[in-house]
Amino acid sequence: MATIKDIADRLGISVSTVSKGLNGGHDISDELRRKVLDTAVELGYHKKGTEGPHSRFVLFIENMDYESASSFGHPIVLGFEKAAYADDNGVDIIAVSEDFQKAHEYDTFLMEHGYAGAYILGFSLEDPWMKTLETTRFPTVLLDNYIPANPYVGSIGTDSEEGIDMAVSHLVAQGHEKIAFLDGSKGSYVSDIRMLAYLRAMYSHHLPINPDLAVYGYFVKEAASYHVPTFLSLGATAIICGNDDIAEGVYESVKNAGFSVPEDVSVIGFDDLPPASKLTPPLTTIHQDLPELGKSGYYILKVMTEHIALSKNLLRPKLVVRDSTAIARPRLAMQQYRDKDSVANINPALYNSFLQDTSAVR
Amino acid sequence: MATIKDIADRLGISVSTVSKGLNGGHDISDELRRKVLDTAVELGYHKKGTEGPHSRFVLFIENMDYESASSFGHPIVLGFEKAAYADDNGVDIIAVSEDFQKAHEYDTFLMEHGYAGAYILGFSLEDPWMKTLETTRFPTVLLDNYIPANPYVGSIGTDSEEGIDMAVSHLVAQGHEKIAFLDGSKGSYVSDIRMLAYLRAMYSHHLPINPDLAVYGYFVKEAASYHVPTFLSLGATAIICGNDDIAEGVYESVKNAGFSVPEDVSVIGFDDLPPASKLTPPLTTIHQDLPELGKSGYYILKVMTEHIALSKNLLRPKLVVRDSTAIARPRLAMQQYRDKDSVANINPALYNSFLQDTSAVR
Repeated sequence: MATIKDIADRLGISVSTVSKGLNGGHDISDELRRKVLDTAVELGYHKKGTEGPHSRFVLFIENMDYESASSFGHPIVLGFEKAAYADDNGVDIIAVSEDFQKAHEYDTFLMEHGYAGAYILGFSLEDPWMKTLETTRFPTVLLDNYIPANPYVGSIGTDSEEGIDMAVSHLVAQGHEKIAFLDGSKGSYVSDIRMLAYLRAMYSHHLPINPDLAVYGYFVKEAASYHVPTFLSLGATAIICGNDDIAEGVYESVKNAGFSVPEDVSVIGFDDLPPASKLTPPLTTIHQDLPELGKSGYYILKVMTEHIALSKNLLRPKLVVRDSTAIARPRLAMQQYRDKDSVANINPALYNSFLQDTSAVR
Repeated sequence: MATIKDIADRLGISVSTVSKGLNGGHDISDELRRKVLDTAVELGYHKKGTEGPHSRFVLFIENMDYESASSFGHPIVLGFEKAAYADDNGVDIIAVSEDFQKAHEYDTFLMEHGYAGAYILGFSLEDPWMKTLETTRFPTVLLDNYIPANPYVGSIGTDSEEGIDMAVSHLVAQGHEKIAFLDGSKGSYVSDIRMLAYLRAMYSHHLPINPDLAVYGYFVKEAASYHVPTFLSLGATAIICGNDDIAEGVYESVKNAGFSVPEDVSVIGFDDLPPASKLTPPLTTIHQDLPELGKSGYYILKVMTEHIALSKNLLRPKLVVRDSTAIARPRLAMQQYRDKDSVANINPALYNSFLQDTSAVR
């Protein structure tokens, strides 16, 4: 575990200055104190001894890597810790399995450990605790998930609607019209939000919606090989993906079909995790600010401990334009690739209304 | 102006305790300190003297009464002040006209006065400063309005979608199917959100959408007389309104047509301002927590000063059930009242897709 000296060495300051920063001493600037605290979090330093008068929060994480620096969870966890420590509040990080949830009642667990509130990452709608969240009275914030009606539970995420609208606008400005969307897993809250965002963006750009070009896969790159041949057969010149992993799979499938990114097919990802910029070509993608998702998760949670019923909270996305998108080069549809089955992949409730509308704009 | 003694009298504590509360003294509980600050705000007490090391925020307000305790703006302004003062931050409240906006450049005004950020109430999309907000770099939060793409500007409001879904669910549970929606002004951001929410709620409850039952009016009670006769002629048994004022107008129009609320027609408002509970019958309405809208406006703004790009933030609504809703008593449509013109009032882009869909569920 890191020591105070490690923090001092990293920042090039004295051990006593670090100590002032960690213990709320007065003769140190706010900026330097924040730097000391942030570095303490980054190096994994944990203050020992008395708890003090402040609150403890817990971050529950499931189905999500957060150990490695390039993982999705890591910067979120760090951001949450940094914001909490800057407020002199404590944080526990607990990886929870389905069995753990069955063994511990949510409210009891929080009460027994004296937590003021919880931030929950990586849960799916099927997780045992999701049912409890409908009625809990402990302030809780969910990343990328939403619980109706309970004023004690809020949600946070990146604004997929704005992000996907930016992606579609970027492609339209380069002459693309046949834009496919390969989403993440069906039944995931964010997948449904992103599918609806894609349909809305296509609709608002007066582009026809073809259900064979709007399909759910899984949040892994292997999903691409099932759907990209259909997209290509239908003449798609651009493919937006539910995350960066899927985009990496799309690269491979496009190549296997004898085409090139971005000359024949433009590709856009979602997340902008570190590998995105290292792909060949570097991936144009919708950037989620993961440290901000961590920090704002803490801030929203803290507001909720003041009995303010924040419900849905969204952060701004950014479109990071790299080399995987280019001006459209139209291709003829190749009927032999056409796979009628893919229509079964889309959620009818989501696109039905939009689909019917496109008859007016086609 | 109120004095320290007024605050002491109101709370039944000594002047010196009030002074400790106002000046951050240590031997006073957090709870009592908060009470002192809240009471100071309520009584209009303003601390004189040095500013201290903390930030100043500004609340701009237009087109909205906030002087009287029963106004829409008053509790929001108080909530904002209370949250800011509890953080030892200062607040200025400035009522701005269109001329004021033309005379002062937004960014310059904030910079010259040293404001850390602004909360804006009551602006419409046509206000001169709305254009500036697309590019400003001053942290800004808008109530019930949204600026695309600029990470320095966030929005806050009550979740209309959840509120209107609660209203429709409540009516459906009482056997209503012909549910009309008389919205506020066309072109207002919240009106469009609420219209879409109504269409979605009807759709998700498998109820047909009739464009003659989904119309824009204005946010005043006079709007009702133009539309309620059509609703009645089409056999509507329930009317949801864009705010409480409209609902009051609906009461009158229903009565003028020889019908009763709630025996013949159930009515639901939006806002739950103080007069709602005093109508005859007391109004069932979607409650917005105005003090929370003020407090969370401050909290979100403060998060944005930490360079966190919060975009859309929504508070939970509550459905307050009073006596203006009852079990549906179906009536035959009265064709003589039918007014074909009302179809022109709806925004086609909003309901088109939903409308077409209802052919499947009708």
